[in-house]
Amino acid sequence: MTTEDSLSFATIEELSALLAKRKISPVELTGQFLSRIERYNSRLNAFLTVTAEHALAAALRAEKELAQRHGPAGRRRPLLGIPITLKDNIWTRGIRTTAGSKVLRDFVPAEDATVARKLARAGAILLGKTNLHEFAYGVTSNNAHYGPARNPWAVGRIPGGSSGGSAGAIAAGLCAASVGTDTGGSIRIPSAMCGIVGLKPTFGRVSVFGTVPLAPAFDHVGPLARSVADAAILLGLLAGRDPLDPTSSTHRVEDFSAAIRKPLRKFRLARPREYFWEKLDGEVRRATETAVSDLEKHGATVREISLPHLGECADAAANISLAETRYGHEMSGYYPAHAEEYSEEVRQRIDAGGKVLATQYLAGLDAQKRVRADFDAAFQEVDAIVTPTVPVPAPPIGAEYVEVDGEQIGVRAALVGMNRPANFTGHPAISVPCGFTRDGLPIGLQFIGRRFDESTLLRIAFAYERAHDWRSRRPRLD
Amino acid sequence: MTTEDSLSFATIEELSALLAKRKISPVELTGQFLSRIERYNSRLNAFLTVTAEHALAAALRAEKELAQRHGPAGRRRPLLGIPITLKDNIWTRGIRTTAGSKVLRDFVPAEDATVARKLARAGAILLGKTNLHEFAYGVTSNNAHYGPARNPWAVGRIPGGSSGGSAGAIAAGLCAASVGTDTGGSIRIPSAMCGIVGLKPTFGRVSVFGTVPLAPAFDHVGPLARSVADAAILLGLLAGRDPLDPTSSTHRVEDFSAAIRKPLRKFRLARPREYFWEKLDGEVRRATETAVSDLEKHGATVREISLPHLGECADAAANISLAETRYGHEMSGYYPAHAEEYSEEVRQRIDAGGKVLATQYLAGLDAQKRVRADFDAAFQEVDAIVTPTVPVPAPPIGAEYVEVDGEQIGVRAALVGMNRPANFTGHPAISVPCGFTRDGLPIGLQFIGRRFDESTLLRIAFAYERAHDWRSRRPRLD
Repeated sequence: MTTEDSLSFATIEELSALLAKRKISPVELTGQFLSRIERYNSRLNAFLTVTAEHALAAALRAEKELAQRHGPAGRRRPLLGIPITLKDNIWTRGIRTTAGSKVLRDFVPAEDATVARKLARAGAILLGKTNLHEFAYGVTSNNAHYGPARNPWAVGRIPGGSSGGSAGAIAAGLCAASVGTDTGGSIRIPSAMCGIVGLKPTFGRVSVFGTVPLAPAFDHVGPLARSVADAAILLGLLAGRDPLDPTSSTHRVEDFSAAIRKPLRKFRLARPREYFWEKLDGEVRRATETAVSDLEKHGATVREISLPHLGECADAAANISLAETRYGHEMSGYYPAHAEEYSEEVRQRIDAGGKVLATQYLAGLDAQKRVRADFDAAFQEVDAIVTPTVPVPAPPIGAEYVEVDGEQIGVRAALVGMNRPANFTGHPAISVPCGFTRDGLPIGLQFIGRRFDESTLLRIAFAYERAHDWRSRRPRLD
Repeated sequence: MTTEDSLSFATIEELSALLAKRKISPVELTGQFLSRIERYNSRLNAFLTVTAEHALAAALRAEKELAQRHGPAGRRRPLLGIPITLKDNIWTRGIRTTAGSKVLRDFVPAEDATVARKLARAGAILLGKTNLHEFAYGVTSNNAHYGPARNPWAVGRIPGGSSGGSAGAIAAGLCAASVGTDTGGSIRIPSAMCGIVGLKPTFGRVSVFGTVPLAPAFDHVGPLARSVADAAILLGLLAGRDPLDPTSSTHRVEDFSAAIRKPLRKFRLARPREYFWEKLDGEVRRATETAVSDLEKHGATVREISLPHLGECADAAANISLAETRYGHEMSGYYPAHAEEYSEEVRQRIDAGGKVLATQYLAGLDAQKRVRADFDAAFQEVDAIVTPTVPVPAPPIGAEYVEVDGEQIGVRAALVGMNRPANFTGHPAISVPCGFTRDGLPIGLQFIGRRFDESTLLRIAFAYERAHDWRSRRPRLD
């Protein structure tokens, strides 16, 4: 039970139980993760900063706290002694936060992001800051400044992005969980490609204070985890109104962990006709079709629906995102002052953002209303929408195109396509593993749910996961 | 008491009393306004459409209703028999609504604007649709397609705009009141220049459904009237949530007429240091300084304040307004399909709107937050802000520049400057007469109030008006 592997790939729930029973100490656990990071990170490049000293000091404090309070479990802090990571665009007081950029290579925040503070208060131990696409502005995590993050299932392939280091670190057993950001799929894409669980909450559910902004209209913060139950635990700790983030919602935060334990006998799923089921890699298609059939065996009724305005999403979301990102980089003084410190790829996109017209931005807002209304209308009829997360397994590092159904599609467009609608509309969405290709690459299944009803979304994802736990399979790292 | 003049220049309150006592009949009253329109409109060009038949038919129905219900005043509809006009960018079912444009020269709406319907239901009699700046997109009402609206106080001068025909018609005794729109001062500017009262309510207070949109972020609908009390009556009838206008507010609608009757013993005014008191015509400066001194005699304490971000308003509001107007004209199919039907002046501005960048639009929204916060902070300390409405009396028709303090300023910039902040921030603002130049041109005083507190704003304006009623002075039309 407490072999290195079982600990490195254990869930928060499992680790918490072992810590509570004092089968393992926080210092041992942290030390073990740090030595795995030492051993494997050079191959995976999942970490930009390893906070070993910080982590061991926190582990020592956790150990004392556990020793003092080994009484009723309810009195322990919920993540006490749990080693986690944070994507490196999340501010950490006194710890360098690069956002994967050269511009911020020496930036040491004077305060924590709200989510960093919440995790620390919950007792989590920060192992380090994870690699990401430069400024989180891309989906490959092929970072020009710090080197590409690599996929633990095939180190020549991308882990997806932009939270590629977070997903890779979890998949490789280098941390128990992580927190990332998702503006166009940046939590879900790497989760799908690395075979883990990634949740983009409802817009406004989790404070974005202290995360390096990309496109504020679509920016979300959320957990990457080893299981749906862990994602539920983390969401419960991260969620809630934050006076420091005026876009954060006052919506009540439920007990998501309790919610998923309520068995779900019957639930209604929709698979949208529009593009979700087109242009899929054959193996992804088979795995997701099988997943949907299996869901029907576990209580789901599945209907095909139409989201008639979904076709407007790609251009509209791109215009809003390009313009907001450009504006943010201008306002922060990064661009054009530091233009030469950007990678060519990101600079091109920042340049493009300076050409979007206000009328295109306004047209984007109108499209947003229509697409959001389509989703809201669907949720009158069903409890969740089910789709593949990404249409292909992880492409090779450096690939600019993927072939799908004999057609060459740009990697970015292919990976973003099924993810961006939920950023555009603000609905919560989760990616869970649903199998592997013959080559051993993970495949992800996405559920999209009602706004501010992550409980139902998590219950559905949990129902699927319980019947199909893919966690016994692990990447070969040696 | 019931001479032609006393009726033509009577307030809604006075006319209602006469109608209730049956000293005058709706048909007589309507007929008298119609013959004045017949006599004077060719000189003033205040009307684009005179709805004589419609008005007389409505007057006949009002007469019957009055005869049936000459009992307690409370049972009468509040505007029963009151002859009014509507700016011609407000939809009227079955009655041509041009918006002062050639594009819409033959547009006959299939339904009423919400405000048109509310006035009709309140018993008002529509005399006609008033002239305006083309598409309400300008402040002179020098309409290239239908001829310039003229100022009753000096027919060679503009009445201001864009609601120039509405203000001119009231000032000339051609209707009792009117409803206009205000995106950058279009109610207040002509009210000041024609010596009447004009109220731009809080953003969202009055439904904009069925008004030809200009820049939806700044578009407001409100009354032009002969007195503050009449403006209060009209606001009470126009205000309120409208399911047809998603931007309309659910804020409670108070009894504004009752509110202004509560005497105001003490109130706090602010005169902002920034630009409100600079670049003023000498006579306007003297009249407004005198008005502020007089207010101090009538219960006001006046302090000078600073609105530190106000300087950002002009560019920011212009960018948002240009972009939204361009977008609206594209979406409605007017532009570029009908580009050749626009006046050169308006087309240039529509063209400019197609060049605003999304980043400029976003910068405008950020500036809006800062300027709004400045005003909201001021209203923690004071009950209203007082300023001149416009820095100069009405310029000659066709003038492109006005001279102020020896400096040449574009007419548009000069007239919009003191008005636009309240459109930008959404605060309610009212213009009341505060005197005349030696040449007999009216001068206006503006009060800006707390959002959704038109009651206090109207009480302050009423306190000033009660002590300084300029209504005895009338323009010479013959």
